Order: sequence, then C-alpha cells, then structure tokens
Amino acid sequence: MKAAIFDVFGTVVDWRSGVARDVAAFLARHGVQGVDAFAFADAWRRRYGPAMAEIGSGRRGFVRLDVLHRENLEASLVEFGLSPGAFADAELEDLNQAWHRLDPWPDAVAGIARMKTGMIVAPLSNGNIGMMVNMARRAGLPWDAILGAEVARAYKPAPEVYLGAAETLGLDCADVLMVAAHNGDLAAARGCGMRTAFVLRPEEHGPGQVTDLVPDEDWDFVVSGMGELADRLGM
Amino acid sequence: MKAAIFDVFGTVVDWRSGVARDVAAFLARHGVQGVDAFAFADAWRRRYGPAMAEIGSGRRGFVRLDVLHRENLEASLVEFGLSPGAFADAELEDLNQAWHRLDPWPDAVAGIARMKTGMIVAPLSNGNIGMMVNMARRAGLPWDAILGAEVARAYKPAPEVYLGAAETLGLDCADVLMVAAHNGDLAAARGCGMRTAFVLRPEEHGPGQVTDLVPDEDWDFVVSGMGELADRLGM
Repeated sequence: MKAAIFDVFGTVVDWRSGVARDVAAFLARHGVQGVDAFAFADAWRRRYGPAMAEIGSGRRGFVRLDVLHRENLEASLVEFGLSPGAFADAELEDLNQAWHRLDPWPDAVAGIARMKTGMIVAPLSNGNIGMMVNMARRAGLPWDAILGAEVARAYKPAPEVYLGAAETLGLDCADVLMVAAHNGDLAAARGCGMRTAFVLRPEEHGPGQVTDLVPDEDWDFVVSGMGELADRLGM
Repeated sequence: MKAAIFDVFGTVVDWRSGVARDVAAFLARHGVQGVDAFAFADAWRRRYGPAMAEIGSGRRGFVRLDVLHRENLEASLVEFGLSPGAFADAELEDLNQAWHRLDPWPDAVAGIARMKTGMIVAPLSNGNIGMMVNMARRAGLPWDAILGAEVARAYKPAPEVYLGAAETLGLDCADVLMVAAHNGDLAAARGCGMRTAFVLRPEEHGPGQVTDLVPDEDWDFVVSGMGELADRLGM
C-alpha cells in the first residue's frame, strides 16, 4: 500500500466535543440560556447528511462544506428558537469556523506521523480544503496533501471521490488504504477496489452512540486507534 | 498576509539539473551516445508552454501536467533522433517521473519551513497534485496543502488559478503572497490583487539565462532566496 487516506470527522478529530465547546462559548457570550451545547452540536451535525444528499442527487450543484455548515447553523439556531438575524454576521461566521478548530483524538497525530514515514497520508474528507488546512495547522496533522470532496467536486460516498483520489495520486485503488470510523465510508471505498481500515470510535456521537460500534464487513484492518493501525502496517 | 503560495519549477526546485541527471542515467542505461542531457532537458521543457497554451486557449480540455510531460518526452526523443517505441513503456514512465524527483534550491526547505510558522504555505504550480506530493515527500517540503493547476483545472497564468487558490483557502487575494522567480507569474497574481515576491533564480535555465534576471515591476519583495524572504516577512 502506497497511500493511506483518512475520513476526518469522527475518525481523526472529535467533532462533537469541539463544536459543543465553541457553541457553549458563543451562547454564553450572547447570554443565551437553556440550550444544551452538545444537543446543539448534534442538531447541527444531523443536517449534514441531508444537505450533502441534495448535491449527491444532482438537485443542487457542488458547494463546499463551509457553505452547508453555515446554512445548517442558521437552521439549527431557528430549531432552538433563536433568530440568526439577532447575531452579527461575523459572529456567525466565527462560530461556523468551529469545524476548523477541532481537536484530534489523542492517538491521531502520532499514529498518522508514523504512517507518513512509509506512505502518502492525506485526508479524504467531505470537509473543504481551507477547513482541512486550518484544522491541520492547529492540530499538527502532518498531511502530504488535502484530497476529498472539494478536489472531486462531489461528496462521499460518491465513487468519484474515492476513484479521483487514487487517480490524483497516480495510484491504483488497490494500493490505497481508506481509513474510517464509518462502515458506509469503507463500503464505498471497497466498492472502488481500495483496502479498508475500520477505526473504532465508540464515543464519536457521545455516550449514547448506536452506530458504527462494530465492523459490518471483514475490513482489512479493524483497530481502536491510529497507533494500532501504524503497528499493524509495520510502521 | 495569511498565506504564501509558491511557483515550484525554477522557484522552489532546480528542474533543469534534476531532469538532466535522470535523462543522463536513462541515456547511459540504454547505450545512447551523442545526446547532451542538459540540451535534452531544455528541449523537453521548451514544449511545456505551447502544450499548456493548447489548454489555455480552450482548444484542448484540461489534462494534468504528467500527461503533457509524457507527450513532450516522446516528441523530444524524436527531436533527438530517437524512437519512443524503442523503449519499454515502464522506462519512459519512469523517466517522465524525473519531474517528481527534483531537488530544491538550497535555501528552499528551511525558508519555507520558517514561513510556515506564521502563514499557510502551499505550492501554486502547474504541476499536478501527485507530482507535488512525491516531490515534497522526497525533498522535505513542508506544504500545508497542494494548490494549483489541478485544483483549478486550468493552467497559470489563467486568473482562475490565482483567484481559485485564495477562494479555496477562504482568503482575500490581498492576504495572499505569490512567490515566483518569473515576472509573468507575478504579473498575473498582481492582476488578481495578490501581493508579490520575486525570487532571483539566475541559473534556472543554466549559465546562459536571459529571462527573469531582473524584476520587471515594483514587486512587493525582491529577494535572492527563501531565507531572505522569511527574514523580510519577520519569520
């Protein structure tokens, strides 16, 4: 295998804690009471799939995830009884950038750095390039390149995202390892001929998580963190 | 300024020496005599502008630089009286990858690493993403992302390459510094509202170089290497 490409939200970074942290600060700054920051983060995230599906179905042209996040933030504010118009645009834009300021899981930076010694490492995320760059600089993620939705101008699990990543790197899919905490992402990658590594992240969605607690298929690797994956890859 | 984006061929890496080195090895391996490796490198490079112009004019759809290099390699072999068909495809493909194995100028890695401490650093090259990744891994270039022709699906000096880079990073052009050894590249960047840094590389084209020996305009910075640029930027 010549490259490892990584899902990011949930697999490499803990989006829920990071978004809730910034939501809590936003709410406190504006004197909003009675809104649970984790519930808000979950609601914001819940709109992510349907928003991408509009693009995946062809009903809407490609826009980057920052744009969808901003729309979904405003809809989530309304859902919690808050008016987006009550906040300055710059405040909303800063909160939208919470998704650029996520902390990696404790094993991520060191494990990915080990893999980088022997393979190309790159995110294959639905996040846009600028978001991935800001996140990587803050967190110290040592990517060789930023691949994913914005390069392919399509969202996972569309096959062209996976196929495009391999082609962009000049590699066969069989030489590329997709690393994700989500069975669906790995199924799409396997469908394109990639190797697959499932990383258990049982708290991505908080203590009540019910999805992706076990591998749905016989993935090539099943691990509980990036250090264990680097071990298994002999790096 | 929040990002520095770099022309690569000639500005960051010494393409002529690197290509000539690999051409010389290729010729020796195949027992070809009487061909000067530097002359071959120059001939190969001479076809680069016209090949991109076909795409810039719209006469041809976008293809990545690896594809143009391969076509231009075969044409250059013919120009030197050699038949591409006389060599195994894998041999030609390996030689084509000479452009992935270029050495940086001595000041480049350390200077760019210093700039990275305070700004996003990324190539804005006509080279494709896979080429830039392979080059960076070999040379130790610490890019935050790979931008340029393949992301924009257009070649410099088309404005969409520069405008697209700023938009991809979520920045205004005025917050982006274009770094290049070529006046034409900087003129295009300035036309898009970017800041400009001219790096003197008087031996890019060898001892007889006649182009880009002096700045044609009052660029924001005129320096003789990346270390001096990092100094001027206070990093």
